Amino acid sequence: MKSLFNKGAVTAIVLLITATLSGCGEDNAQQSAAPATPSNEHYNFRLAHTWPTNFPIFGDAIHSMATMANKMSNGRINITIDSKNKHKAPFGIFDMVKSGQYDMGHSGSYYWKGKVPNTLYFTSMPFGMTAEEQYAWFYHGGGFDLTQKVYAPHNLISFPGGNTGNQMGGWFQKEINSIEDLQGLKMRIPGFAGEILAKVGGKPTNIPAGELYTALERGTIDALEWVGPSLDLRMGFHKVAPYYYTGWHEPGSEMQFLFNKEKWESLPADIQEILRVSMRLAAYDMYAHSYHESAVNWDSMKADYPNIQVKSFPNEVLQAMKDVNDVLIAEYAAADPLAKEIIDSQAAYLKKARAWTKISDQSYYETMESLQ
Amino acid sequence: MKSLFNKGAVTAIVLLITATLSGCGEDNAQQSAAPATPSNEHYNFRLAHTWPTNFPIFGDAIHSMATMANKMSNGRINITIDSKNKHKAPFGIFDMVKSGQYDMGHSGSYYWKGKVPNTLYFTSMPFGMTAEEQYAWFYHGGGFDLTQKVYAPHNLISFPGGNTGNQMGGWFQKEINSIEDLQGLKMRIPGFAGEILAKVGGKPTNIPAGELYTALERGTIDALEWVGPSLDLRMGFHKVAPYYYTGWHEPGSEMQFLFNKEKWESLPADIQEILRVSMRLAAYDMYAHSYHESAVNWDSMKADYPNIQVKSFPNEVLQAMKDVNDVLIAEYAAADPLAKEIIDSQAAYLKKARAWTKISDQSYYETMESLQ
Repeated sequence: MKSLFNKGAVTAIVLLITATLSGCGEDNAQQSAAPATPSNEHYNFRLAHTWPTNFPIFGDAIHSMATMANKMSNGRINITIDSKNKHKAPFGIFDMVKSGQYDMGHSGSYYWKGKVPNTLYFTSMPFGMTAEEQYAWFYHGGGFDLTQKVYAPHNLISFPGGNTGNQMGGWFQKEINSIEDLQGLKMRIPGFAGEILAKVGGKPTNIPAGELYTALERGTIDALEWVGPSLDLRMGFHKVAPYYYTGWHEPGSEMQFLFNKEKWESLPADIQEILRVSMRLAAYDMYAHSYHESAVNWDSMKADYPNIQVKSFPNEVLQAMKDVNDVLIAEYAAADPLAKEIIDSQAAYLKKARAWTKISDQSYYETMESLQ
Repeated sequence: MKSLFNKGAVTAIVLLITATLSGCGEDNAQQSAAPATPSNEHYNFRLAHTWPTNFPIFGDAIHSMATMANKMSNGRINITIDSKNKHKAPFGIFDMVKSGQYDMGHSGSYYWKGKVPNTLYFTSMPFGMTAEEQYAWFYHGGGFDLTQKVYAPHNLISFPGGNTGNQMGGWFQKEINSIEDLQGLKMRIPGFAGEILAKVGGKPTNIPAGELYTALERGTIDALEWVGPSLDLRMGFHKVAPYYYTGWHEPGSEMQFLFNKEKWESLPADIQEILRVSMRLAAYDMYAHSYHESAVNWDSMKADYPNIQVKSFPNEVLQAMKDVNDVLIAEYAAADPLAKEIIDSQAAYLKKARAWTKISDQSYYETMESLQ
């Protein structure tokens, strides 16, 4: 599919998609769409996602998107949603949407790292941006355009698909006080974060979700990370591990909506806009939903299991993992110009955004904590 | 208009508006809207806002909303936007939308405190929730329903209209090291925050925006607060005052879209949904836009004026202001059952949400700061 890549076309799509973001010089100047006779045409789309049927929060975001599109089009847009229980290929979403077997998908960009290495950067990066910072980068700092540079050669458009919020570092059976405590530590921690753990002496292991509770309880693994209270509560990990570590590896994980690019380009402008807006709103809404679920679930975890101990990794451990992260990222940047462009963009944006966060939300949380 | 208040009707509207938020038990079960013949009918709305023509960020959010509604309806929805330069009544939005002189408005809920005291609570409260926490409260913690309880008796529906992010405490000519330093301090700080300042010895003053720079430069006032780097940069305050204090009084100011309730109820479901979704997305987008503008503007302020000193008020000062805040809020709660319901809801939600923030974003920002 490499021959489909055309930089001009990618830029045009990006401009079209992001056109409503820019301000207008004159009041009312932006409403240039000429009224047209509404079409009676119906649009049926098939969407495949990575998650189980009835998966909370993520599944709610997908359904909310489909419902909005259906209502706003007065029933002309219908999106059929297949969970992994139906299509049996949770990590086949990229290929199924690329080929047109499905029109749309919902998944996580970092799952495609083995197939297309530059997809790694669009979910969340260790030691990287939080959700607020990352949305600003996506929509105003060049992130959205860079995403399409990676996906367009694969006949795909990737839209933000909902944020989990800051993910916790995981549940541990013993305290981590030094790098030594990580040596040989068996932990369920997949993907790039698992690579980092391995480089500082840990043993990342992959265990199916349904077996995680028992593995943690019986000592088959020493630790695991899942998401945070929003989705951890139902897994029950707090009943079998005493230490809950704060996060470092996924500070703001943004899921993705995928759309088949040829299909997208065949759609009329109003249908595109309804879909674009529905996906974008469902994504933001998922972040608010995740925040809420984490807040109420953390409250009930603490009430039922008051002995849960929240810990942060010591500076020595975090610094060692960040050093490994920085080396790996530098290797990726050296090996591929587009990787370098994305990495440089994220690093420069993080620096500016975090300087603002430091004097706004961070300072606010710190000073408020000291008050009665 | 008191007689229009009907708790059942309010609840029904709230349910209708928030229906797409809830998850569905079965995949695809939610798409129940029967396809209907699209109408050729056009819908023209008039919107009045509080801001000047071409006001950045806020104005962009309003135009983005109108553009999305226009495009998604294939040109059938047209929203005419009048700035305060046109209608000459920046603080008349509530009345003009209530009466139907305008169909829609964009403003700030706390501006109506003198007219309807319970509108105070829906923008941002001193020592209250940040934008992330407040969106979770609005959409999942009961905030949206409480908002409509306050607005429905006035023939209005109020939707979130965009967040400025955490606002800075303001620009000061001298350092504030104690309560004594606040005595007689002349500061531009309007509204409820100004009432708090007055109770701890300050002198809140009201000066038109166009005269603020000169007033601060010449010492007519000792300090002022505006928004944050996103909108402060163009005002130039950093050129004439050395101290930039971190915030306490507006941790996540959410503007509002107002809609005439009778007009809203006369609209077909697809038009309502297009408007609801456009307003809601424009609001979230404004938060990302504000975050971006604050990040890049703070970066250039620091580069051009490296002597700006960022300070936080000492604990003694913050505690004194919080004590005053708590006394005032308790008085409001004692005087009115609906005020009590809102205040209790916000306090209970803040407690849960902040406990989660503390182990997620707050902890992350703090630990990341210590790394090289």
